[in-house]
Amino acid sequence: MPNPAVSMEALFHPRAIAFVGVTLSKPDHWTRTLLNGILKFEWEKPLYLVNPRGGELLGHKVWTSLEEIPGPVDYVIATVPAPAAKGLVAQAATKGAHFIHFCTSGFSETGQADRIVLEKELLEEGRHHDVRLIGPNCLGLYCPESRLSFNVAFPRDPGGVAFLSQSGGNAIDLIRQAGARGVRFSKSVSYGNACDLNESDFLEYLADDPSTRIIALYVEGVRDGVRFRRALERASATKPVVLLKAGVGPAGRWAASSHTASLAGEESTWTALCRQLNIIRVRELDEMVDVLVALNRLGNPRGKRAAMVGAGGGAAVLITDGLEANGIQVPQFPRKIIDEIASFTEVAGNMFGNPLDYSQSMADLEKLERTTNLIARWEGADFLLFYLRPALAIPRAKGILPLIMETLSRGAQESGKPKGIILSPSIYPEDAEGVFELVQLCDRLGMAVFFSFSTAAQAISRVADYYDRRS
Amino acid sequence: MPNPAVSMEALFHPRAIAFVGVTLSKPDHWTRTLLNGILKFEWEKPLYLVNPRGGELLGHKVWTSLEEIPGPVDYVIATVPAPAAKGLVAQAATKGAHFIHFCTSGFSETGQADRIVLEKELLEEGRHHDVRLIGPNCLGLYCPESRLSFNVAFPRDPGGVAFLSQSGGNAIDLIRQAGARGVRFSKSVSYGNACDLNESDFLEYLADDPSTRIIALYVEGVRDGVRFRRALERASATKPVVLLKAGVGPAGRWAASSHTASLAGEESTWTALCRQLNIIRVRELDEMVDVLVALNRLGNPRGKRAAMVGAGGGAAVLITDGLEANGIQVPQFPRKIIDEIASFTEVAGNMFGNPLDYSQSMADLEKLERTTNLIARWEGADFLLFYLRPALAIPRAKGILPLIMETLSRGAQESGKPKGIILSPSIYPEDAEGVFELVQLCDRLGMAVFFSFSTAAQAISRVADYYDRRS
Repeated sequence: MPNPAVSMEALFHPRAIAFVGVTLSKPDHWTRTLLNGILKFEWEKPLYLVNPRGGELLGHKVWTSLEEIPGPVDYVIATVPAPAAKGLVAQAATKGAHFIHFCTSGFSETGQADRIVLEKELLEEGRHHDVRLIGPNCLGLYCPESRLSFNVAFPRDPGGVAFLSQSGGNAIDLIRQAGARGVRFSKSVSYGNACDLNESDFLEYLADDPSTRIIALYVEGVRDGVRFRRALERASATKPVVLLKAGVGPAGRWAASSHTASLAGEESTWTALCRQLNIIRVRELDEMVDVLVALNRLGNPRGKRAAMVGAGGGAAVLITDGLEANGIQVPQFPRKIIDEIASFTEVAGNMFGNPLDYSQSMADLEKLERTTNLIARWEGADFLLFYLRPALAIPRAKGILPLIMETLSRGAQESGKPKGIILSPSIYPEDAEGVFELVQLCDRLGMAVFFSFSTAAQAISRVADYYDRRS
Repeated sequence: MPNPAVSMEALFHPRAIAFVGVTLSKPDHWTRTLLNGILKFEWEKPLYLVNPRGGELLGHKVWTSLEEIPGPVDYVIATVPAPAAKGLVAQAATKGAHFIHFCTSGFSETGQADRIVLEKELLEEGRHHDVRLIGPNCLGLYCPESRLSFNVAFPRDPGGVAFLSQSGGNAIDLIRQAGARGVRFSKSVSYGNACDLNESDFLEYLADDPSTRIIALYVEGVRDGVRFRRALERASATKPVVLLKAGVGPAGRWAASSHTASLAGEESTWTALCRQLNIIRVRELDEMVDVLVALNRLGNPRGKRAAMVGAGGGAAVLITDGLEANGIQVPQFPRKIIDEIASFTEVAGNMFGNPLDYSQSMADLEKLERTTNLIARWEGADFLLFYLRPALAIPRAKGILPLIMETLSRGAQESGKPKGIILSPSIYPEDAEGVFELVQLCDRLGMAVFFSFSTAAQAISRVADYYDRRS
């Protein structure tokens, strides 16, 4: 049985790391990615590279074995081939390491009998030596607080979201895309085949982790359904839980088993579980990003009534349709507010109502602030939603767009209402820089940034429903 | 009554254009956009700029009136203010112009009684002088064959898709985004308030236009329901019609009336109409782009069974779920094919089945081609779907990604099956160039390029259903 005295806390805060790979001298993709993550993410404590051939790599001495290392090693990251994995466990135990992360694939996920046995033996060896295993077939840990990361492009500053992901690729994708929109993470674990430490171990820890406010899960299958349910109950009792359960249809289930040797479980069980525990269920990574952004920036919107200001008449019509189709209300402003706005704003090229299209006068910052303020203060709406198509606006108004964003934000400030913005991106590289800068700016201004009205509406709706059910 | 002898054909192929604007010397946004479109889009026939003050603009003489222009003028583009619009009609008639496009806004869309009257008088003046009007409150014509465009960033080469759009902003957005994925246009009209020439006039013309194969419509409201229905019947009898009917919910309907003075009509009528006439109905511009891409590149896929090859284990699971949830089948490959692939491909890091995840061996082009060929030839699938997350792959494999795309294409060639690819974009500017180049390359290789699995699945499903119902 695993040693309960070895805490998860120690896993996320190791005193020293050893990186063991046979391909260190000519690193394959994942070895390179992981090494890059650790080396360039400002890991400040000792890092030992280990390879039987010794030598030097990127200015680091390469030790020929774990034993040879002078100081203590708490955590081993291994990219050794599958058949060499088991042998490493005893060595790690001798060195006093309590955790090994096996990035290595080629175990039970292949479905081949001999490789299933290999994984089973690996687990037994871990149990025998009191060494806990992460993986195999995964990317391991991201903990910005410890400056530990499996990817160099992740946010450096920590935040309140934990992401457990059975898939490493999905973890990279989600953390990078959510990171661009202001979501920051306490911890993330890519845990792959989960032969030893599994989703329940991590979830139990995260439920009580004081630095984690929100928990996101990408799960292909669960090792122990009863225990996982209990962990979900505990976690969801105090924190919003967002779940992407993958492997739903027949081919999807095959893919899940083939990817991480997971048994996908019955769809109806998952549906019931999410309903009972008020878990926000999503179907795509982008959708998960949207929900995290909404949780992060809108908090509890207290209702589903939007007050909208933006630029683009056709966009306004489509956005309103999209919001209404997804359960967001766009109530009409009182006559008094409309008349007041009309008293100082040109009518041609604008639309006075909710949505308030300010296409023609957007660059008149004084009027824009006054208008936004009038709308924001109206008690008939729960939150503010701005919209703009930067790709259409950038060629004409690149310089003024940041000022417009700041003006919208200032106009909304007094009301204290949550605010979101829909900034549709563009595939053209010449638009990319401008759109990205706006996204970053809006996030800094405290806006939840969405890329389309339907995804914005879905995410806001779900978060509002979540808080509604919780209260 | 309008003069029936003046053909639409003449509208799209004018011998000379006059551009009339009071703001020519200090152009506002739309004047600048329209002028830019015409001047920089290689318009080769005469263009006359007209402004009472005369002078010169961008190397062009500015004439003080239409009358003063020496040669014939078929088509007038006007950005004069609303109150000056009516006066221009008689002048245009005197000059022999049969069409005026009024970009000008501030008419019936404002909902103000005096401005509704202004639009009515404008129409009466047009009728009186036998001058047909486009707009007001719109961007007018895009006809690459004539080198006539209302936006400089549109594709130069013509193609088979016509887009009628009541909204100018939505037209710009759709044409640019679809253009990036290989969709090319015969004509597009942004027709705004449609006080004279309306959706039915244009649709009747496009139904018989030999250079138009596919018709896309963005409609907020319809002037004459009976006539429009007849036009839709005629168009949809021979050509795929994709419809985005905006102004659906209560606030959406208000927005539509406020944007283009449209009466949105009953949702149930539209639903029934689309079902009866086999019209592909979409709800967002992105969805319209996806359907156009699928129609353009996949043609008639003859069924909904996908054979998949790509890179990314977690992506494979999610994509398969997404496809199955949207009515695309992912049938398992026969044992014989899987065994053959396994005989020459390493098992660790790959997944042998459908989806076939080739993460580990993607860069081994010989194996990739052989594998793709085996899968493509299998008669159990109707089309091929590739997938890749370029943002994850670009840092490691930027140079080889184009070769991988070409190899996938070559592997599929013999089968003659339609092929699509899911290339998820990234908001990071450093990924933008690489993703865009891949998108362009895949399009050139004849692949339908999609940005997410759910949108890909929806678009493919709809197009397959369309052809199924048609046959």
